[in-house]
Parts: sequence; structure tokens; C-alpha cells
Amino acid sequence: MAKPDRNIYLDLKTLEEAREIWARATQSLRTNIEEIPSHLALHRVTAQPLVALRSVPHYHGAAMDGIAVKAQETFAASDAQPLRLVLGGNAFVVDTGDPLPPNSDAVIMIEHLQSLDEREVEIRAPAFPWQHVRKVGEDIVAGELLLPQQHRLRPADLGALLAAGITSLAVFARPRVWIQPTGSELLPADATGDLPPGKITEFNGTVLASMAVECGAEPRLQGIVADDFESIKSALESAVNSPVDVVLLNAGSSAGTEDYTKGLIEELGQVLVHGVTMMPGKPTILGVVQGKPVVGVPGYPVSAILAFEQFVRPLLFSLQGLACPSFPTVAATLARKTASRLGLEEFIRVILGRVQGKLVAMPLQRGAGVITSLTRADGILQVPQELEGMELGEEVRVRLVRPDDQLDHTLIMIGSHDNTIDVLANELKKRDSRLHLSSSNVGSMGGLMAIRRSQTHLAGSHLLDTETGDYNFSYIERYLRGAPLRLVQLTRRAQGLLVRPGNPKKIESVADLFRPDVVFINRQGGSGTRILLDYELQKLGLDGQHIQGYDQEEFTHMAVAVNVLSGRADAGMAIYASARALRLDFVPVAEERYDLVIPEACWEDAKIQQVLEIIVSGAFRRMVESMGGYDVGESGRVLGHWDGERWL
Amino acid sequence: MAKPDRNIYLDLKTLEEAREIWARATQSLRTNIEEIPSHLALHRVTAQPLVALRSVPHYHGAAMDGIAVKAQETFAASDAQPLRLVLGGNAFVVDTGDPLPPNSDAVIMIEHLQSLDEREVEIRAPAFPWQHVRKVGEDIVAGELLLPQQHRLRPADLGALLAAGITSLAVFARPRVWIQPTGSELLPADATGDLPPGKITEFNGTVLASMAVECGAEPRLQGIVADDFESIKSALESAVNSPVDVVLLNAGSSAGTEDYTKGLIEELGQVLVHGVTMMPGKPTILGVVQGKPVVGVPGYPVSAILAFEQFVRPLLFSLQGLACPSFPTVAATLARKTASRLGLEEFIRVILGRVQGKLVAMPLQRGAGVITSLTRADGILQVPQELEGMELGEEVRVRLVRPDDQLDHTLIMIGSHDNTIDVLANELKKRDSRLHLSSSNVGSMGGLMAIRRSQTHLAGSHLLDTETGDYNFSYIERYLRGAPLRLVQLTRRAQGLLVRPGNPKKIESVADLFRPDVVFINRQGGSGTRILLDYELQKLGLDGQHIQGYDQEEFTHMAVAVNVLSGRADAGMAIYASARALRLDFVPVAEERYDLVIPEACWEDAKIQQVLEIIVSGAFRRMVESMGGYDVGESGRVLGHWDGERWL
Repeated sequence: MAKPDRNIYLDLKTLEEAREIWARATQSLRTNIEEIPSHLALHRVTAQPLVALRSVPHYHGAAMDGIAVKAQETFAASDAQPLRLVLGGNAFVVDTGDPLPPNSDAVIMIEHLQSLDEREVEIRAPAFPWQHVRKVGEDIVAGELLLPQQHRLRPADLGALLAAGITSLAVFARPRVWIQPTGSELLPADATGDLPPGKITEFNGTVLASMAVECGAEPRLQGIVADDFESIKSALESAVNSPVDVVLLNAGSSAGTEDYTKGLIEELGQVLVHGVTMMPGKPTILGVVQGKPVVGVPGYPVSAILAFEQFVRPLLFSLQGLACPSFPTVAATLARKTASRLGLEEFIRVILGRVQGKLVAMPLQRGAGVITSLTRADGILQVPQELEGMELGEEVRVRLVRPDDQLDHTLIMIGSHDNTIDVLANELKKRDSRLHLSSSNVGSMGGLMAIRRSQTHLAGSHLLDTETGDYNFSYIERYLRGAPLRLVQLTRRAQGLLVRPGNPKKIESVADLFRPDVVFINRQGGSGTRILLDYELQKLGLDGQHIQGYDQEEFTHMAVAVNVLSGRADAGMAIYASARALRLDFVPVAEERYDLVIPEACWEDAKIQQVLEIIVSGAFRRMVESMGGYDVGESGRVLGHWDGERWL
Repeated sequence: MAKPDRNIYLDLKTLEEAREIWARATQSLRTNIEEIPSHLALHRVTAQPLVALRSVPHYHGAAMDGIAVKAQETFAASDAQPLRLVLGGNAFVVDTGDPLPPNSDAVIMIEHLQSLDEREVEIRAPAFPWQHVRKVGEDIVAGELLLPQQHRLRPADLGALLAAGITSLAVFARPRVWIQPTGSELLPADATGDLPPGKITEFNGTVLASMAVECGAEPRLQGIVADDFESIKSALESAVNSPVDVVLLNAGSSAGTEDYTKGLIEELGQVLVHGVTMMPGKPTILGVVQGKPVVGVPGYPVSAILAFEQFVRPLLFSLQGLACPSFPTVAATLARKTASRLGLEEFIRVILGRVQGKLVAMPLQRGAGVITSLTRADGILQVPQELEGMELGEEVRVRLVRPDDQLDHTLIMIGSHDNTIDVLANELKKRDSRLHLSSSNVGSMGGLMAIRRSQTHLAGSHLLDTETGDYNFSYIERYLRGAPLRLVQLTRRAQGLLVRPGNPKKIESVADLFRPDVVFINRQGGSGTRILLDYELQKLGLDGQHIQGYDQEEFTHMAVAVNVLSGRADAGMAIYASARALRLDFVPVAEERYDLVIPEACWEDAKIQQVLEIIVSGAFRRMVESMGGYDVGESGRVLGHWDGERWL
């Protein structure tokens, strides 16, 4: 048995402590200073104050096309007594930008001249001194401070530098970041096709490298190093001896690698922090080897990203002399009671949308390994370690992970999920890249509850009433009294039995599930699919309790499909799309209706109107039909208009 | 005489009209679609919906180190009756990430095991099915929509793509932007040293290229083309025939080039807009040649930048299928009555700071040629064309041009300027890169007025009381009744006569100004320097009216210096720093005190405390002294504490 009594995290630090220890240890570090051409300095950080080398303009110049004159000589001009000026004598033709001829101090616009002939012009008003003249130093005065040090250069700054004769300047070098993936389970990121069980692709390196780029750093992503002490040691030695500023060791997901990292940093340098009271991100290791910051980044992708944000990002900015920019945040209302571990600073990914005037935050899945909890998120809610959770309806501050002008363009959909929603989401984005559909898949009943609490713009629902054989109506009547809404058909879809490719057990109908050689995998009680199966069995006068595996429940279509694919079960009930996703065979059992429930208060919302336009469009129908298992012939049909008391 | 009756802007469009015309003409344009490796796709925009090619995880894996078991076989385990499991029999050692052995469906953490020997372990609690197991598809399900099209890829997105087996993807090509500087007055941006009058460096190209980069585009900055029709025509033809998506013709600052641009686009394609009611930016030209958008970008740098923001930026985003991100804005109080031209949408650069709890916006210089009005700005105030201006104290919305977390770190200084303030600004930034000193140089009296209106954190002032020979005290007593403050000495500085290098006229004192061969240039009445000169003359019993040029007034130290340098005057009174800036000789006349006026309400502000620390620091004193003409021996001394009625 391997290491049963490891004593890791003996000295866990709070996030705040760890950040302080890290800042203290690294705050005086800077990258090298390098001299670069000004025109290549966009977003670089000045390492010295920049003082103008020349004035701008560096000569008195005409600011208009016209003639240059000595103002004093024009004072007599008036409408009654126009004044003639001699070109080349006391008036000189100038274009904008031309230097003023000697002794002239004003420009008269061409539009205000009467051209008499090639030699003379007439004016009818005096010029005042310096009119339409750009004087020396009007913009920049030689010797003045143009930009201070530790300033990140923007496009206009580069213009000012070049104008002032500063053609090259000293900037902090981009921090170079050695990114070392470790783990014997890893395959290169570009591995395609099916992977052997136990192997995963190394994608954290790309994520960390991209995050480094966003901090103005230069990532140096290394090849994968196997999960043994000597290999990792030799990689770390190469790293600290190479010209990089920061070293990231990205642990494999096993705790073993983490131990190696800690031991190695201890052997070659100093461990400052091992373990932080944050979740995800707890196994973070912070250390210094040969004066270089070394971070043991946890292996799970969400942990890796959050650890980077908390410790590497501030470091990469401070290495360039910059304070770490704060993340934009918004105030929102929590849409679900959310438990959190006491003593751990938890980072909960949420979707965010403005529903009926209120910004609503709905938590997503939490697993540290679930990278889509970040790609699907609109924001991150940080629950302080002193709290055991947050209440439904609580006002929270949420950090945005999308551009903030997308907030008003986010459509929230809570409830049952269906693959046609993916098509809808894509079509919305195609129409306007800001339009974003954020969904939380909590089942049909969860969707109706969200409607009742005004937390969603729409809900997907396929709740069968076994008395009537119809969908959703009776549930709305029962649960959404006082909540006016409309019910819109999205699709009819095939539900059926998933079986292994080629249907080796020859399962042709639900009756075959009762055979002794057939093992079934069921959906949880209360799910639309379970209700449907029971309804089908009941119609045949059959009792599900006699099916082998009827008491084994899964919570999603996909989990059912996985059970079948892996051979744990011979059949399970799910939608066609789940069969197609895992290339299983599909035995149709029934067709059900899947509807959209839209609160009356959201009906006029431009986003909802877009949804209604899309689902009746030919493009949408063609795409959904090509997926198989769907009938969208009546998509967009308004099935009912509920005023909160009765159907209108 | 050249073209006195040009009819430009016959058909001026409002900014809104022009944007609409432009959007309509270009909205369906997209760049080419190209296939690129996922790991290089950061910030690129998806051209197609991305569907997962594999599930993640693709196998049931251990989520913890420990043993894999079949949960059902552990149900009997309890503290009272521990259960023994046989390693390799009904229990299998697994590390995190290992695939579950066949027939196992749960993992028991190593911490919960009693290791008996090499062959057996004991457990004291049952495992429930699927505990500590990462199930297939828990993160990503093969076939699901991972990311929609027209989505800008973030670091985590790349991780999700690679995890899901998507190693390359279709994205919109970065828009390629041909940037063509035109103008015979232009020298390459890297020209160093003194420039001949009438020549300016071509820096707009670098600014426009950098702005294009910020929009995700690839700039193709071209060499300078001379200001003649045929050269520009040939450049435009090369541009539209090359593989670029957008062409920018950056006019020289002369109206001539603009005419060429318009004529050329008309000849080769179509002009959509010529002239926009915006300021700066009016001479913008929008057209299409061979189906490619061509923009005539005005020549003045601020005009060029604003025209780019209004027309090129949205285009570069829409070419990639993205909506143009909006700029962040804040609400602020206008600190000065601000006139604006009726019928022109005016973009006024402002400094912004939170003074006594209120965000204050103070307009800066307006010239379209003044690029430092942008580099010094904290924000831009857009005055609608229907307005003739905005009132002091009016609530306005200001677009931010610095990161918004700098707002609370901006120190506002309104009043007289001195070069030591540059040193102070730099030292502040050095301490914390967010600390930013924004100054508006409106003279000492202007500073006192800003203090009276609570619009500034501090003011620089050097107002001489000719009765007492002392500075600032009597002015504060007179103008700042009811405004408690402290007066802090910043520096003593030398004022004197600026003369040409080598002092050819041998001017040794103010008495020499009365010589018939000496021409003087004066400062405006009421300026600190004028008051000082008159005081010095009066002490000698002399009358300035007998000085040649005494009635010729300039408004800044620097303008005086320029008059001397250019030979228009033989001498002028100014501070030493202005002599040094233009390498003039300096004849000391007097030393004056330059103080900081700090409202009592700001005294405890952390930023002010930083200022007070800096000005007594050795580093500050050494830097200021090295500039010459300063005495900072008593810098930081609190000269007086004014309670609004009397000095305490």
C-alpha cells in the first residue's frame, strides 16, 4: 500500500495569508530592463521617466491653409475699407503645417480671402496675433515629463513618444514563464481520436500559457515530464538555470506529483506556502529556488486557473512594475441557496443574467476538474471562508468573466436541457456576438421553480401528465399559480432505449427489458424520462419492479448512455441525441413534446423575440432535423397563454 | 493662389448618420475563415460552432488516491464491524486519474483505510456507489456544443477545446489593415535629433497600427507617400489589390491631401461619407473601393485617433463577426463651464479624480493636434451636437481612457505648473503604478479657485504679495475665506532672464532691458512672473513702460523661451527650467517660493500623504536639485494652517 499516512497540508495558509507571504517574497523582483524601439512598445511598461527630446511643434506653423501675415499690419482692414496685401511682400501663401515666414505671426484662412490676381489678395477683417498658428511647444515642450515610469503604454502614448523624438526607450522585459507539465498520464495536447483509459491530454499548459500572455508575459511551454522525482528534479533545475523569471510546475492530477514538487522545492530552495484554504486550488505550492519564484500549480484545470489568478497573475504584473488590475465585478442576487465549506474560500462559477430588472446569479457545477464550469460561466462568486454558504436571494458581488456589455445580452435558461438548445444558442450568437445563452440544467421541475421565482428568462420543460398524456399544462396550473406565462412548443423528440452498437441483445421494445439476460439502467424518480417510461409500461400493464436494474438510477440522459456503452447495463431510456453522441444504437419507444416556458414579463424582451424568430426559421429547423430524432414542424407554436389563474 | 473656393463638406453627415451608413455598407463583410491549431487560438473568433469530439473524462476514473471497490460489497462495513478487503481481489489500489478496474464503481480515500498488510486493508464505513469517481462525460459530453460561433476564445476555452479533442478549428482571419501615411511634410518615425521647420515625423501610422492590434487586427504599416495625386493613387491601387481587408489613408495635415483622398476614392470606387459633424475628426472620409472599405483618416493625431475609434474599430470587430465592445464610462461632475460648437459632436479630453467624495472632470486642451491632450487625459467627454456647451457642476458621463481601478488612485492638481511636479508625478507612479497625478495648468489663481470649489486635491501656487514680498498667504486670506487648508512649501526656484546661448547682447540684469538694442517679451498681466518682474523693477525705481516689447505678452514660460530662441525677442523673464528645456542662457533675477495648497479635507487622503512623504525624501530632493534652479532644502515644510478664517 502506498503512503497511507502522508501529512500534507499540515500548515495550510488562508488565501489572504498566502497572498501576503507571496507578495512580500516577490514584490521587489523585476524583470530585466531592455531598450526597444518606440514603435514596438505597445502595452510595454516604461522602466524610466520619459522626457521629451524635442518640442512639438518644433516651429511656428500654419494651422490652416491661407496666407501668413504680420497681424499688426492688418489692423486697418474692415468691410468698409478692405485691405490689399501683396503676395510675397506682406502676405505669404501657406498650407497647413508650413512654417511661418519670418516676421509673420498670424494666418488668414483661404476662405476669408478675395483673390484679386496672382500678386494681390484683399482682406476685410484684421487678423489677431497668432491666429491659426500652431506655436512651438503647443503640444509638447522639450524637457517636460511626457510619461512617468511604470506606465503601460497605449497607442496614443507611442504617438507622443515618437513626436517628441523618443525613438527608443527602456521598458521592463516581458516576464518569461517556464511552464512545466508533469504527469505520466499525460499525452500531448494535439493527440486526436480515442484515448486509452487513464490517459488524458495535457491542455493545462496551453491554458496557463494563454493566461500568461494576457498578463503581458512570454510563456515557455515545455514538453511533458514523467511523474518521477528525478525527471521532475532535472526539469526544475533546467528551469531555474535558464533565463526565465517564473517557473510553474503543473502537477499531474495525482497527489503524488504534488509531493514531488514540494519535496523538490524544499531540496533546491524554499517552500513558502504548501496548501491554501481555497477551493478549487487548495494544493497550490509557493516557493523560491535560486531567487526565482516557483509555483506548484494544481493539476485539475479549474484549480490551475484559480491558482494562477491568485498567485501568478499578480506576480507577472509586479515583475513589470505594475499593480495587478482588479477584476470587474457586479452586484447580483443569488438564485439558489449555496452551501460552502467553512474554512475554505470557495470560488463558485455562476451564470448571470438580468431577469425582470434584477441581475440573477445561478451557481453551476463545482468540480475542480470541470473546465466547462468556467467556459460556461458568466461570473465567479467568491464565498469567504468564514461562511458556510449563502442564502437564496442574498445580494452578492460577482466577478465577471465575460465582457460586461454582454450582461444585458445574456439570456438565462434554467430547466431541462435538450440538444436543440445548443443550436438555438449558436444561432443567437450568430445574429449578434453579444447574445449569449447561459443555461443551468436542473430538470423540468427546477425550471418551473425558477420561473416562479422570476430567476430565468425561459425554461425548457417536458413534464408528462400521465392522466392526460399531455405535457406541462397541468404542472403549470399546479405550480405556477399567479405567474403569467406563455407555453411555446420547441420540438417533439424521440425517447427510446439505448443499446450497444449492433444491438447484440436484440432488444426491440420495453417488453424486452423484462428478459432475464437484460440489465437495465434507470433515470431518477420524478425525471421526465422516468415518468415517460413508467407511463409506457403502465399502458402495457407491466410493472417496472420486475426489470433487472430498475432500481439503479442515473440523473442525466448522458449518464445512462455511458452505462450502456461501458457494458454495465444492456439498455437505458434516453433521448436519441444521447445515443448519437456515444454512437449507440437507438430503439424508439415514444415521442414526447419539449416546450419552452416563457414568463409574460419576459415576452417582449428583445432576446426572447429573437428566440421566437430563430425557432421558426428554416435554418434552425434544418439544423435540428439533421441531428435526427427531432420533429420541429410545429416549433414556435404558442400552445397556451396562462394569466396566472387560467389559460386564455 | 491655390483653390480659394473649394467646396468641401457640402454634404457633412452627423456622427450617427455616418456610423449608420458605414455599418450598413460593411456589416456583411467578414475576413476569410482559416483553420488554426487550438493552442494558438487565444483571442481568435470562432467561425463555426464547436462540438465536442470526445467526452471528458472519457473513462470512469478515480478522483482520489485510494482503493477502488464495488460499493455494494462494502455496505456491511461499520466501526463496530470493520470490513476486510483483499487487494487485487475485491479492492484495487488506484491513484487519482487511474481508470476504475472492471466491476468497481467507487473509490475509498487512502486516509480512510487501515492498512493491515500487503494483501489486505480494512474499512470502517461503507462506500456509496460512484463516490470519488469522475464519471465519463462529467465535464464534457461528446457531441455537445462546446462553444458557439462568433465567440472570442479565452484561455479556459482553449483548455476545453483541447480536452474535447478539438486540436484545430476554423476562425475568422485577423483583419489585415493597410495603413498608408501620405504627406510630403513627413519624415520617418525614427528620425532623431532636430528636424527642419515644416517637417514632422510620421507617428500616426504607429498609433493607428497599435489601435488595430488592440482590435485583434494585423496592421500593415506602409512607407510614406508624397502628397501628390499620382503617388497616392498608385498607393491606393496597390492597397486594394493586395490581400488586405481595410485600407486607411492617413492624410497629411493639409487639406490638400484630403482632397486627393476624396477624389481618388471617387475615381476608383465610391465615397459614402465626406466629413462628419464631429470634432476633432471632421475631415473623415468613408468609402469603398473594389468592395474594400477605405477610410480617409484625418491628419491631426487626435482627429485620427477619434476617427479610428468611431469608424475603423467597429469595422475591425464586425469583420471578425464580433459586436464592437463598448467603452467603460463613469458619471462625473464637470469642473468648468465648457463651451462646445453647436452642430458638432465634440470630444473633450478631461482629467478625472475623486475629490472629497465626488468624481470631478476637468477639461484639458482641445486642439486636434495636441496628442498630449490624450496621453494626459483620464477620460473623454462627448458633448452632443445639439448642445452649445455644458455648465459647471453639470453631471456628465465620461468615457474612461485609463483602467478604472486607477480612478481612485488619481491625484488631481490644478493651478500653476512647475517642473518639480513632473518629478513628483514620476515618484508617485514608482511607488504604485496605479498612482497617477493628473494636472491642469491654469495658473496660480485658477488653482485657488479650484480649491474654493472643492475640485482639486491640491494646487500649485506662487502668488507674490508686492506689499510684503511674501507668497500666497494674503491671496488665500482674500480668496479662500471659509476654505480650510494647509500651505506647504514645495520649492524655491530661480526666475530670471532668458537670453540666446552665449548671451550675445550681454544682458546682465533687468536694467539692461532698457537698452535701445534690446527687445523684450513679457508675460501677461496678473501672472506670477509678471508680478515678480514689476516688483523687481519697482525696487529699482524703474518703469517697465520704457522697455521695448514690454507690451508684447505671452502666457507661458515656454512661450517666452520660444520667442527668445526664434530671435523675435532678445530677452524674457521665466523660470530656469524653461531656459534649460530650449538650451538658452539664464540670467538669474530673483528667487521665488512655489507652494502646494492642500484643502484640509484632503490632508488625510493617502495620496496626499504619499506626496508629503515624497517631497521630503532624499530621492526627490536629489532629482530636483540635479535639474538646476531649484532649492528644495525646505521642501515639505508646513508654512501655514488656515482654518478658513485665520491662520492657526
